[in-house]
Amino acid sequence: MKGKMQGVTLVADWAPKPGFKLGAKDLEGRQTYLGSQVWKDPRIEMREYDIPTPGPEEVLLEVKACGICGSDVHMAQAEPDGYIFYPGLTGFPCILGHEFSGVVVEAGKNAFDKRTNKAFKGGEPVTSEEMLWCAQCRPCADGQPNHCERLDEVGFNVNGAYAKYMVLPSRTLWSLEPLRKLYKGDDIFIAGSLIEPTSVAYNAVIERGGGIRPGDRVVILGGGPIGLAACAILKRAGASQVIISEPQEERTKLALQIGADYAINPFKEDFAERVLEITEGMGADLFMEATGLPTVVYPGIERVIWEGRTLNSRIVVTARAEAKMPVTGEVLQVRRASIIGAQGHSGHGNFPRVIECMASGMDMTRISTKKVSLEEIPANILKLQADRSQCKITYVAS
Amino acid sequence: MKGKMQGVTLVADWAPKPGFKLGAKDLEGRQTYLGSQVWKDPRIEMREYDIPTPGPEEVLLEVKACGICGSDVHMAQAEPDGYIFYPGLTGFPCILGHEFSGVVVEAGKNAFDKRTNKAFKGGEPVTSEEMLWCAQCRPCADGQPNHCERLDEVGFNVNGAYAKYMVLPSRTLWSLEPLRKLYKGDDIFIAGSLIEPTSVAYNAVIERGGGIRPGDRVVILGGGPIGLAACAILKRAGASQVIISEPQEERTKLALQIGADYAINPFKEDFAERVLEITEGMGADLFMEATGLPTVVYPGIERVIWEGRTLNSRIVVTARAEAKMPVTGEVLQVRRASIIGAQGHSGHGNFPRVIECMASGMDMTRISTKKVSLEEIPANILKLQADRSQCKITYVAS
Amino acid sequence: MKGKMQGVTLVADWAPKPGFKLGAKDLEGRQTYLGSQVWKDPRIEMREYDIPTPGPEEVLLEVKACGICGSDVHMAQAEPDGYIFYPGLTGFPCILGHEFSGVVVEAGKNAFDKRTNKAFKGGEPVTSEEMLWCAQCRPCADGQPNHCERLDEVGFNVNGAYAKYMVLPSRTLWSLEPLRKLYKGDDIFIAGSLIEPTSVAYNAVIERGGGIRPGDRVVILGGGPIGLAACAILKRAGASQVIISEPQEERTKLALQIGADYAINPFKEDFAERVLEITEGMGADLFMEATGLPTVVYPGIERVIWEGRTLNSRIVVTARAEAKMPVTGEVLQVRRASIIGAQGHSGHGNFPRVIECMASGMDMTRISTKKVSLEEIPANILKLQADRSQCKITYVAS
Amino acid sequence: MKGKMQGVTLVADWAPKPGFKLGAKDLEGRQTYLGSQVWKDPRIEMREYDIPTPGPEEVLLEVKACGICGSDVHMAQAEPDGYIFYPGLTGFPCILGHEFSGVVVEAGKNAFDKRTNKAFKGGEPVTSEEMLWCAQCRPCADGQPNHCERLDEVGFNVNGAYAKYMVLPSRTLWSLEPLRKLYKGDDIFIAGSLIEPTSVAYNAVIERGGGIRPGDRVVILGGGPIGLAACAILKRAGASQVIISEPQEERTKLALQIGADYAINPFKEDFAERVLEITEGMGADLFMEATGLPTVVYPGIERVIWEGRTLNSRIVVTARAEAKMPVTGEVLQVRRASIIGAQGHSGHGNFPRVIECMASGMDMTRISTKKVSLEEIPANILKLQADRSQCKITYVAS
Repeated sequence: MKGKMQGVTLVADWAPKPGFKLGAKDLEGRQTYLGSQVWKDPRIEMREYDIPTPGPEEVLLEVKACGICGSDVHMAQAEPDGYIFYPGLTGFPCILGHEFSGVVVEAGKNAFDKRTNKAFKGGEPVTSEEMLWCAQCRPCADGQPNHCERLDEVGFNVNGAYAKYMVLPSRTLWSLEPLRKLYKGDDIFIAGSLIEPTSVAYNAVIERGGGIRPGDRVVILGGGPIGLAACAILKRAGASQVIISEPQEERTKLALQIGADYAINPFKEDFAERVLEITEGMGADLFMEATGLPTVVYPGIERVIWEGRTLNSRIVVTARAEAKMPVTGEVLQVRRASIIGAQGHSGHGNFPRVIECMASGMDMTRISTKKVSLEEIPANILKLQADRSQCKITYVAS
Repeated sequence: MKGKMQGVTLVADWAPKPGFKLGAKDLEGRQTYLGSQVWKDPRIEMREYDIPTPGPEEVLLEVKACGICGSDVHMAQAEPDGYIFYPGLTGFPCILGHEFSGVVVEAGKNAFDKRTNKAFKGGEPVTSEEMLWCAQCRPCADGQPNHCERLDEVGFNVNGAYAKYMVLPSRTLWSLEPLRKLYKGDDIFIAGSLIEPTSVAYNAVIERGGGIRPGDRVVILGGGPIGLAACAILKRAGASQVIISEPQEERTKLALQIGADYAINPFKEDFAERVLEITEGMGADLFMEATGLPTVVYPGIERVIWEGRTLNSRIVVTARAEAKMPVTGEVLQVRRASIIGAQGHSGHGNFPRVIECMASGMDMTRISTKKVSLEEIPANILKLQADRSQCKITYVAS
Repeated sequence: MKGKMQGVTLVADWAPKPGFKLGAKDLEGRQTYLGSQVWKDPRIEMREYDIPTPGPEEVLLEVKACGICGSDVHMAQAEPDGYIFYPGLTGFPCILGHEFSGVVVEAGKNAFDKRTNKAFKGGEPVTSEEMLWCAQCRPCADGQPNHCERLDEVGFNVNGAYAKYMVLPSRTLWSLEPLRKLYKGDDIFIAGSLIEPTSVAYNAVIERGGGIRPGDRVVILGGGPIGLAACAILKRAGASQVIISEPQEERTKLALQIGADYAINPFKEDFAERVLEITEGMGADLFMEATGLPTVVYPGIERVIWEGRTLNSRIVVTARAEAKMPVTGEVLQVRRASIIGAQGHSGHGNFPRVIECMASGMDMTRISTKKVSLEEIPANILKLQADRSQCKITYVAS
Repeated sequence: MKGKMQGVTLVADWAPKPGFKLGAKDLEGRQTYLGSQVWKDPRIEMREYDIPTPGPEEVLLEVKACGICGSDVHMAQAEPDGYIFYPGLTGFPCILGHEFSGVVVEAGKNAFDKRTNKAFKGGEPVTSEEMLWCAQCRPCADGQPNHCERLDEVGFNVNGAYAKYMVLPSRTLWSLEPLRKLYKGDDIFIAGSLIEPTSVAYNAVIERGGGIRPGDRVVILGGGPIGLAACAILKRAGASQVIISEPQEERTKLALQIGADYAINPFKEDFAERVLEITEGMGADLFMEATGLPTVVYPGIERVIWEGRTLNSRIVVTARAEAKMPVTGEVLQVRRASIIGAQGHSGHGNFPRVIECMASGMDMTRISTKKVSLEEIPANILKLQADRSQCKITYVAS
């Protein structure tokens, strides 16, 4: 397909901080694994691009919906010294947008549809993993695509979904056909754009956390999109009590709609006491840290485990943070507990199972609290730097 | 407590078949592991007993409800040669009844309530495991009470619940306090009497079958109480599609009310074709054999696995049967599948989790389709030999 | 690299049996998933080829060693009606040879060495998986490359190692550098050529069978290369008793050298009785069926489980067979046992762990009982149709 | 059996610190869960006792050997304020000694031998778990005896093995018969006395740490008896590289004899650098913290994980410590790692598997570096307060 399109593009200046050395995957002036060490003065520009052409194993997608993620905000946000907030893999300029859905327009001859077990056909509604795992490094060969040593990321160092079209390898695409029965109109694509963040939560609590047994109790700390998705998934997995800890009232309400049974406002209540009260002294089988403030919340989690009677509690650390949690080994020992790091969303059957959950009634679309057009994306990314009142803002293509 | 009580008692004659030898746990004239090899001319008698007295680690229970189980029927049922149907551990005469709930009346001084972590107090509503594991054999020490080498069984070789009172060791009791919030009046005890069969299903699909991940598909073969409980548990565990295969219409209806999404009548439809159709060619992650006719149903399961695309399917064989299934290793290999034997309900946190499931909304009481008095039990046990129209008949104490 | 080379080539005639239909991956006249349904009159020819050229993600290998596998024998062997024995994926004419090692000669610019995390360099000693998983189908995306829906197989439908050179994708290659410390001269390559079959055993007993805990007991049925490798792996995994059941004396001796503690000759002794005797009535935690005669051996396995006291026994069915085993569900139930199908060797960290085992002392080279030149391969493949006295015949490049 | 015997008895004064409150299991003047908060002025006395009489489920043992444990030392050792070091469950006066073996002299009529599945007979050589789990609390019913809510401990609040005889419940006993083939004379009992500490290590690395796959790499921090046992177990489990980190030379030598492949002296070398060097940049799959100084060693472990390439590393925290480790969640996330608390040795088939390991060649007797008589025990306990040169001092009955 020929033609031009607009893309919401993150632009920044390559200005490595003193002492920065190019890493194995870094490309001088173009790409780094350590964004906040290198990129200065970020700005969002609407730029014009040629509509891209898919290679033999690739697909051209018409974008239908794309959620704005916190990392979009952090790439566009500068510290007082001008360096961007976002610490990870980045290659600018880049069209942002990585929580998306769309429709297949064209496909390379070896682009293969996992749903049909045949070549991709135009018209297939799809979403994609954001992580373009390489399929040839040691972690990929071992079945660990979330830890690919040659990773590319859509909307970070590869052009993303804040545009009319985009190109993707077929191996990270997943069909949204199963959603058709339950979701009508745009909703299939809004649901589709929520599969990526929901899969991050699914990977954290089910794959990494080991899931739960029906009747177990769980506590989710942090009511952002990932925490909310965890509420929905764990309620669906049979939790007898899903407890959300979140200070903001709008998010608490969403959590209670989507799966939580109890809400704690940690600014107004004693977190540990409330959990022990709700669970009648039992504590919880699974804790999910999704606040990004582990040093703040860890002591409360530890107190619930120590004073509660539940054995084998797992604490899944999901929100990325480099702060050092003060961990008492004795508590893990006496209660047979463990702490587990979780990252990513790819592999392990995560995407197809999240799609089946949505197809059979786990409706995440209500966390998309605002819809915007392509032109409105830049302003909304900037607004999110300060205003946390919307849970998920979604670009819906007109 | 002093006094007399009536007990629905199974009586039979000790008449070992030729060649029978006393086993390790057998007691001449009193008890055997191989019921159908030994006991002849069974009859149910209403006999009078002293109200029993609990030992130091025991509890006296006032029985509130008790479901009639198929094994009750089979103990009272004779083959044409006069020997009983039931093949397992039996010691007659014995008061039957092992799916029960009641209230603590008296407790020995070392009888310990797992809920409060203190001595038992009168008034506590409880249910019990039917398996009185010994806590000192090798399997018990290893954490495998369902395979206790010195097992006693309530209502089989130890007096059961078809009476006003009964005595039990505290270690197999579980409090029903958590049910109070959701169940009112007799319902707490009817729910309580269903915990034992529900835990058999829970042990089969969750502990032995390994559970499922939210979004997985499951097929339950057989709509008896165990199969129905599996439907409820697996729907709660997040199955995207729960399929019941059952010829009888009343049970199919119950299955659909309690958790199944689709029903197959294997007498009228091709089982394998329907499963593949419903799942759009995927097959299922978990199959539960609960018909007792594994040789009949196995080929259909195998065909679904072979023709379906799902990997890692598990077939949990739950209903006891000594028939030989024709198993093709190649099917297990090509689809990475496995066959798993399941037995019992004790240990592994099964009972407390089933109680939490019920306390948070998994309502099993609707499978109790008929209530009877103590006096009506014998006639109803006999009626169940021929009439399968009631799903679960429950004795409710007046 | 330019030039010519000789390749030991399997040639056969495309003559589908009546009723055969082309499957999804079949190619008229060229390739089928069901070899024995299609290919007639097989013959081995030494043919001349151009030295192949690697693509951007590929590597050109100089072959150093390659073991002859039973499937090589079965592709070249005809039933009385002329059709080949081998039932699986085949595309002829094809250079055979899939258990190999070699040295990297040239590499495409995106061919990536998992060991160094960098581009491949000439001189690297390597082996390869035989299964060229596609990395884009549903099983591959889910981490199940052994069940790839678009599989190619080296030496079956893609040219193999019975030649001087061969081309392979970098993603299935594994460096043999770790072997250098312990293996000298040709031995590094002979060891390297045994990694593929050893990984089949590793995948069966460790990945699929779940491994063992140190102190567990194991029984291996069948002393072919896969069964022998299982003896070595499970001894290394800490089995207290490794029992091999194998009628042939040479293989029994190898088994005892390589890891087995006890040998049973099932033609001369009662298999079940001997296992129960050796284990003092305990039975075994893991059984590996590697005879290809599951219907013959299953009743003995079942008897050991039934009469033994071990719970949680796993039976791993490894040798491919379509015969129907007579499986008693009750035995699986009473002993908490399971039957598990195993296929393939890829993924799950199998190859790198087998390499580390070999590098730290698990010496498999002694099962290579005969070395041959390229020219001698055809005669040796044919000889193996009748003569089972050699355990593994290895082509070693001069 | 009638008569008198001497017992090495720990005596101390009940003098609770200000603010101490009696806990659920505490008994005024007699027993507490928090030893170091209550007991003052400890002294070891040789006291005279009646030979005890076994109850119906108990056994009278003639003690044959018993190792001195660090907790014996800490019960007898006072801080400057006079309070004992040992922080846990204690009831004084009490005969110490909990790592022991002996021979059955008398048995109650319901005392059951797990080996024979029959009543205990005199002459059976046995060892015992130190943890007398109650078999009726919630954790015991769930299969978690190491977390029993009504625990008694031999040699802590129940009379132990520093005497000629002792009484024990049959459920915690394990036969040493399997050791007879390999161990002669006293060695069967010395080996037997090492089963308890070896099972602590086994429970930590195999049950809690999840074990390893053959070919994995492991690092043990701390060369005390538990760390040394871990070296032996993990080598046996197939580790390709076992690395011990220990400053003391004698212990390093023992580690290298017993299973370690490499030793690091963390006082003289950079721990993290050395591990990365030995493993060629890979790091390790399993770390066992057995130093008791987690805050000191954790940063080094974290650096190995961060800079190494291994995914899914598990850090098993075994040595009890209440210090707070500084844990970076990001490291756990990026490397898919986890931290696991381990406590105890009971259940999960730990004891019988350790016995099978020893019976098949895992010889732990060499860590018993000194033998003493009953009379010499007190002086040796006191000597160990300052002198760490002996690895394990064993009382051997004459």
